[in-house]
Amino acid sequence: MITYEPFLSRSGESMQGSAIRKMGVVAAGIPDIISFAPGYPDPKVFAWSEFREIAASILTGEDPAALQYGPTRGYPPLVKSLPDMLALRGVTASVEDILVTTGSQQGLDLVARILCDPGDVVLVELPTYTGAIAAFRDVQAELVGVRQEADGIDLADLETVLRRERAVGKRVNCVYVVPNFQNPAGTLIGADKRLGLLELAARHNLLIIEDDPYGDLYFDERDAHLTRPIKADDREGRVIYLSSFSKTLAPGFRVAWLAAPAALASKLDVAKQAADLCTGSLDQRVVYESWKRGLLTERVPQLRAHYRDKKNAMERVTRSELGDLATWREPRGGFFLWVALPVHLNAETLLARAVREKVVYVAGTAFFVDGSGQNLIRLSFSAPTPERIEEGIRRLARVVRAEAAEPQPVGVHGS
Amino acid sequence: MITYEPFLSRSGESMQGSAIRKMGVVAAGIPDIISFAPGYPDPKVFAWSEFREIAASILTGEDPAALQYGPTRGYPPLVKSLPDMLALRGVTASVEDILVTTGSQQGLDLVARILCDPGDVVLVELPTYTGAIAAFRDVQAELVGVRQEADGIDLADLETVLRRERAVGKRVNCVYVVPNFQNPAGTLIGADKRLGLLELAARHNLLIIEDDPYGDLYFDERDAHLTRPIKADDREGRVIYLSSFSKTLAPGFRVAWLAAPAALASKLDVAKQAADLCTGSLDQRVVYESWKRGLLTERVPQLRAHYRDKKNAMERVTRSELGDLATWREPRGGFFLWVALPVHLNAETLLARAVREKVVYVAGTAFFVDGSGQNLIRLSFSAPTPERIEEGIRRLARVVRAEAAEPQPVGVHGS
Repeated sequence: MITYEPFLSRSGESMQGSAIRKMGVVAAGIPDIISFAPGYPDPKVFAWSEFREIAASILTGEDPAALQYGPTRGYPPLVKSLPDMLALRGVTASVEDILVTTGSQQGLDLVARILCDPGDVVLVELPTYTGAIAAFRDVQAELVGVRQEADGIDLADLETVLRRERAVGKRVNCVYVVPNFQNPAGTLIGADKRLGLLELAARHNLLIIEDDPYGDLYFDERDAHLTRPIKADDREGRVIYLSSFSKTLAPGFRVAWLAAPAALASKLDVAKQAADLCTGSLDQRVVYESWKRGLLTERVPQLRAHYRDKKNAMERVTRSELGDLATWREPRGGFFLWVALPVHLNAETLLARAVREKVVYVAGTAFFVDGSGQNLIRLSFSAPTPERIEEGIRRLARVVRAEAAEPQPVGVHGS
Repeated sequence: MITYEPFLSRSGESMQGSAIRKMGVVAAGIPDIISFAPGYPDPKVFAWSEFREIAASILTGEDPAALQYGPTRGYPPLVKSLPDMLALRGVTASVEDILVTTGSQQGLDLVARILCDPGDVVLVELPTYTGAIAAFRDVQAELVGVRQEADGIDLADLETVLRRERAVGKRVNCVYVVPNFQNPAGTLIGADKRLGLLELAARHNLLIIEDDPYGDLYFDERDAHLTRPIKADDREGRVIYLSSFSKTLAPGFRVAWLAAPAALASKLDVAKQAADLCTGSLDQRVVYESWKRGLLTERVPQLRAHYRDKKNAMERVTRSELGDLATWREPRGGFFLWVALPVHLNAETLLARAVREKVVYVAGTAFFVDGSGQNLIRLSFSAPTPERIEEGIRRLARVVRAEAAEPQPVGVHGS
C-alpha cells in the first residue's frame, strides 16, 4: 500500500472530524449509554403515520418526477411555498431568493464556498455552531471569535475585532450568527441588537449569515415576537438566511433551505450543481405535502411544549444534583443546556470518566474558535425521555463530583 | 441593493452553470419539447409498487432512526452490504473503504476537495463527464485533457501530457476516468488498457478516480466481463471507485457510494460531515431494503434490455434520417449516443434552431476541457419512449439539414 499524505490538498490535510459526530460513534458502541451529545430531535414526536401515508401517495408512479433528478433550486412547489413560510416569520422573499439544500449543513458549506478564499476571515460568536466551523474551515477561512453577552453577540467587540482584522490586511466579508436559541449557548439575540447588527453590517460593508434552525421552537408564546429574523429588517440585501425542516419535521429527510439576495442565490445554485445536483426528490415532496396539509402549523405548538418539558426536566435535576457546582443561563427555546462546570475542571478529560459512567456530552472547546471553553459542556435535552434525562444527569453529577474531589494537577492554579 | 461581486471567493466568481442543467430549464419551459439532454433513467422502469411498500414498512415508527440524523459513513446495514455488491463486480473492499454519498456528484465533489489545491492538474478524458468538470473546477483545479481511442483513454498521450505538466512544475496527482460506457462518448475502456492504466499510475505515482455509474447497464450479456472495474485489479490502493443506485433504482433517492483506500475514505468521511452531515435516512433504507429483497438482481437484466431497445430505436432512426450527415460509434451500454455532425456545423449555435423545432440535446463543447467538440452532440436515449425518440430525431434531422444547407459563415473553412 502507498502513503496518501502527498496526495492530499491543504484542506484535506487539515480537516478534523466533528466532536459531535465522534461522540455519536462512541455512544453507538456502548449499551445503555445516555447521550446528551447530539442535537437530535425526538423521533417520538415525528409524524410517522402522516409521513407513511404521504410517502405512499407520492410513490404511486403517477408523478414520474417523484424519483427522478430534480431542479437544483428545489422541487418547484416547495420553492414556491417557501416565501409564504418566510412571510410568517416577517421575511419578504421571492422565489429567486430561494434554494432548497440537503440539510442546512449544505447551505453553510455552499455559502462558505462562494464567499471565502483561503485566509479570509469569518467572524463568529464565542461559542458558535461546530457545523459552521467545519464548513468555513474546509474552505480554509480563518475563524475569529466575537464575545457574547446575555442578549447575544457583543457589537462593540464585533467592531473592534473587525477593525483589527482589516487593519492587518485581512479580507473580512461576513459574520455568522445563530440568533435564535443558539447552538450551543441557547442565546437569543435581542431585538435592538438585531437592528444594530444590520446597521453595523451596512457601515462596514459585511454580509450576515443568519442560521435559524430553532426559531420556531421557543418555550413561551410570549417570546414568539423575539424570534423575528434579522433578515426581516434587511432592506439592503445583506443577509443570507438559512433554515431547516430538520427540527420541526425530521432530519432524515435532509431538506432545508436558504433565502439570499437573488444574485447570491444563483451563485449558490451553481455551487450546489457541483455539490450534489439536487436534494432528494421524494424527501422534498414529503416535506412539501406535510406543509400543504398544515402538519407544521398544527404540530409546532406541540413540539414547543414537548421540548419545554424536557428542558424543565433537565434543569430541575441539574439544579438538584449539580446546583452547587454548575451554572447555566435558562434557555428560552431550542435543544441545549449550556453548562459551566467549576473552572478548574476540564470537560474533555472528564469525558473518559463520563463514558465509564455511561453518559456523554459535547465538551465546550469544540464550539470555541479561540481554544477557550474548557470547563463548559453542551447537554442536549431534545432526544432522551425525561426519565433518561434524570438518570443521565445523576450519572453526570457522580462524574463531576468525583473529578472535582480529586487533587488538581500542578500548574492549574498558577496558569 | 448592494453589489455582490466584491464578496465572492475566486471559486464563487468563476463558477459556471452546467450546460445539462441549463437545457433542463429550457426544456421545462416549452410544451411538447423532446429532450435528449439529461441522462435521466426511465421512470417507467422504476419499481414504484415495491418502493411504496418498502417505504411504508420503514415509516412505521418502529425504527426511530429511520428519520433521524444518521452516521456520516452511511446507514450501517447498507455500508455493510456494499462490499458484497462490490464483490459481484470483482472488487474486494472492506467496510472501512466505503462511504455512502448523496449521489455520485457528491462523491466527486468530496474527492476533489480532499485531493486538489488551486492550480493542481487533474487529467481527464477528451471528452469527459460535465459533473466531474464542475466538481474539479470548483476547487480551482486545472483540467487537462487526454485523447481517447476506440478502446478508451490513450495511454501514450496520458503519459505525454503528464510528463509535460510535471515538467512545468504542476502538481498532477490523479486521473479521472469513466471506464464503462462513458458519459458522453459511450466508450468502454479495454481490459488490457485498464491494467495498463494501473501500471502507468504506479509508475508515475498517480491516483485513479474511477467513476462507474453505468457498468451494470451493458446491452449484451457477452460484454459483462468487459465491465470489470479497474479497482478489481488495484493491488496498491490507487483507485477511488464511485458508483451509484441512480441509474438502476432511481436518482431521486440521491444514494450513491464510493470505495477508497481506508485512509482516504476516512478523509472523505470528514469532508462529508461538513458537506451535509449524512445522506437521507429514509432513502438509504429504501435502497438497502431493495437490495436485500433482490430487487436489483431481479430487475437489472430487464433494464439492460429496456435501454438496449431504446438505443436501437435511436440508432435506427438516426441512421435513416441523418445517416449521410452524422456519424457515431455504437455504444455497448449506458444512456448516450455521441454523434458527430458535419465539421463545419456548430452544435451550440444549432441549439437555438433546435429549440424552435422543439428538440434539445447537449452541445459537445460542454464535455471538452480544451474547447473542442463544436460539431458533437450528446443524445440521451434513456428517458424518452421509442416513439418520442423517433419524432425527436426527425425534428433534429430537419434542424441539421436546414443548418447544413445554409451558406457557411466566412472564415470557417480557412480557420
